[in-house]
Amino acid sequence: MSAAILDGKKLAAQMRAEIAAGVAALKAEKGVTPGLAVILVGENPASVSYVTAKGKACREAGMLSREIRFPVDIPESRLIETIEALNADPAIHGILVQLPLPKGFSEKKVIDAIAPEKDVDGFTPVNVGKMLIGDDCFLPCTPHGIVKLIEVTGMDIQGKHAVVIGRSNIVGKPVAVLLSRKGRSANATVTLCHTGTPDLSVYTKTADIVVVAAGRPHTLTGDMLKPGAVVIDVGVNRVPDATKPKGYRLCGDADYESCAEVASAITPVPGGVGPMTITMLLWNTLESARRG
Amino acid sequence: MSAAILDGKKLAAQMRAEIAAGVAALKAEKGVTPGLAVILVGENPASVSYVTAKGKACREAGMLSREIRFPVDIPESRLIETIEALNADPAIHGILVQLPLPKGFSEKKVIDAIAPEKDVDGFTPVNVGKMLIGDDCFLPCTPHGIVKLIEVTGMDIQGKHAVVIGRSNIVGKPVAVLLSRKGRSANATVTLCHTGTPDLSVYTKTADIVVVAAGRPHTLTGDMLKPGAVVIDVGVNRVPDATKPKGYRLCGDADYESCAEVASAITPVPGGVGPMTITMLLWNTLESARRG
Repeated sequence: MSAAILDGKKLAAQMRAEIAAGVAALKAEKGVTPGLAVILVGENPASVSYVTAKGKACREAGMLSREIRFPVDIPESRLIETIEALNADPAIHGILVQLPLPKGFSEKKVIDAIAPEKDVDGFTPVNVGKMLIGDDCFLPCTPHGIVKLIEVTGMDIQGKHAVVIGRSNIVGKPVAVLLSRKGRSANATVTLCHTGTPDLSVYTKTADIVVVAAGRPHTLTGDMLKPGAVVIDVGVNRVPDATKPKGYRLCGDADYESCAEVASAITPVPGGVGPMTITMLLWNTLESARRG
Repeated sequence: MSAAILDGKKLAAQMRAEIAAGVAALKAEKGVTPGLAVILVGENPASVSYVTAKGKACREAGMLSREIRFPVDIPESRLIETIEALNADPAIHGILVQLPLPKGFSEKKVIDAIAPEKDVDGFTPVNVGKMLIGDDCFLPCTPHGIVKLIEVTGMDIQGKHAVVIGRSNIVGKPVAVLLSRKGRSANATVTLCHTGTPDLSVYTKTADIVVVAAGRPHTLTGDMLKPGAVVIDVGVNRVPDATKPKGYRLCGDADYESCAEVASAITPVPGGVGPMTITMLLWNTLESARRG
């Protein structure tokens, strides 16, 4: 079997076009332009490039993008005051603090300052709690994007065995929560594996869906899969490669070649899960603006 | 194999003695008496008996117990004002609203009114979110009590496969979260099963720990277990029984006889998980009073 490629770029482009149409409709009907504020502290190159990409995606969707940059030595209190001002600003419907923050900042305190009704990243404790309880809330972007990618395969998630590898707060835990909820594109039996799991293959071999977010290349190989499984690879790892101009290439947490031989569908890295994250951020910002 | 009986009454008595000693020490050292307020709306007999039991357990541990009863037709706003007054009352360290509330009340709104730092039931979204994130918080009482009962078996939970049956907000989901955390008495690989799971035995047959909280008798039978598994039965079901004075007897979600033949340890119903819930409530209230 040769797996279908789950093209995140293509799905993201389709969804962003739908979001742009939603933005246009909201402007026309209510005169409201969804606004996203992105706060960046310091000059971490990866963070700078994420923030730039978010701003660009916002504007392309017809949204207001406000980028707020602070030097690395800004007092935490000043950062929190800025967030509080954005909480009260009617032009802003979503607030995002680019993580990680430089050393010395309490990410917990800073994230907690974001009003839950503008927490489009879905990272505040209130939002996370509502997600687990099953109340209405902003779904975290990467996990939500993963569910959308699984939908593309046409597989009915209901009743399936999903194995999630990795228990991060940003991906692993919320993906496990979303897939095991009642309702559409959910209702799977979910096993959450992690660094404390002695033998991953015991679980992956019976899985219809494997989401790997372990942060380590070659965590998942084809011999660990049940034939026909859907593989979602969340990893983004830099592997040294002298043949590349930058001296490295990107690879996921799954061994793509061997997994693609056994899986029915697999996300590439890059171009799989990655493009979905910003897309779901736009989705949440539009949703927040619709709520007013 | 004949399973050891996991005696919740005995463990609860031991822990309540420790809690009482902690209460006495806090009084002596800081002049602080932990106080728990329990709010009951209406006359649901099961709720009345739970509230009575909680008050009694509080007083036996040397804590202040304040029981607040409202008629079923109290306005919701009045209930919320009462909670807000308790939030501000320095003599009260824990606030609990006995669920379920009568029809017409929004449990969500009422629970949300409880200050997170006095939410000793651990039911507010902020608390639930912190639990999932792994931040310091009040752990929900029944799930926390279940972890304590598993500890009694001497089994090292780390690296084991735990299967949780049932995805309620009060038991199933938080038990899954607690068992899969990093750290002591945790770090298990957890599979969360529910009504959407086509065949439970596929998962239970490889489980070292099975927590059944499905609300249905005979959900778990001995033939579904791996020999030596630990079984925690959270169910409390009334089964008609003409030989009993009340016309019924209590049984759990597990078929006790067949499971006890295969398991290494099992909780009885009643006398297993039940006594632990109030114990962990006292634990949280003492903890809250210690924090001040």
